[in-house]
Amino acid sequence: MKPFVLHPQLERDTVPVGDLALSRVLLMNDANYPWLILVPRCEGIVEIVDLAEDERRQLMQEIAETSAALKALTECEKLNVAAIGNIVPQLHVHIVARRHSDPAWPKPVWGAVPAIAYEPRVRDGFVAALRGRLGV
Amino acid sequence: MKPFVLHPQLERDTVPVGDLALSRVLLMNDANYPWLILVPRCEGIVEIVDLAEDERRQLMQEIAETSAALKALTECEKLNVAAIGNIVPQLHVHIVARRHSDPAWPKPVWGAVPAIAYEPRVRDGFVAALRGRLGV
Repeated sequence: MKPFVLHPQLERDTVPVGDLALSRVLLMNDANYPWLILVPRCEGIVEIVDLAEDERRQLMQEIAETSAALKALTECEKLNVAAIGNIVPQLHVHIVARRHSDPAWPKPVWGAVPAIAYEPRVRDGFVAALRGRLGV
Repeated sequence: MKPFVLHPQLERDTVPVGDLALSRVLLMNDANYPWLILVPRCEGIVEIVDLAEDERRQLMQEIAETSAALKALTECEKLNVAAIGNIVPQLHVHIVARRHSDPAWPKPVWGAVPAIAYEPRVRDGFVAALRGRLGV
């Protein structure tokens, strides 16, 4: 099996939070919304259905864990969970905490408004809180 | 437990395909893209993480089944899988077969272009093929 390499666009747009059993957890560097990305560390996988059954089960478990962490830390009004991948083919699942007051609501976040980079201190504090919740 | 009632907007925008163990399978009446929606028949559930663990596992299984059926029937180039629900709060998962030539590519489909209703004969043929693949 080839080693896992994160897609360069995901590398560029995110900061690492840590590794769960299956997925690398990334924070999108976009202060518009609390936005995590799960990337199963399986080289060459594009679609959820391409994962093995036990990997899919683990991915769902990790979607639930990161959703619960985001919900608890952000008190968001809605979660958006999506595997799209039309531009970056490496399988990745977006978990976005939405608020009625966010700049894209009620539209989906993709392509809605330009990203705003986090203040480093805010970003580091959020990443630390996420690591605490997720145990990574 | 309250009986399951499909949200009126989902009722209006789709045609029923059939029921899997957990989810009702719907076909979006939009000929722009082959587009299924899974609605777990659990009254009052908004987020994936609100489902019980065995229900989440079953939902993932049904995402894989419907993804495989869509992929086989449409020979699509990409699948988009998403639980958004910013407008319709009843938990529902979109499974959209995308082609590089479709009218929204590479953008997500939500809000991209107006829906085009299927020709009834095309729709009925597609629903029949889906039922055959899914065994519903």
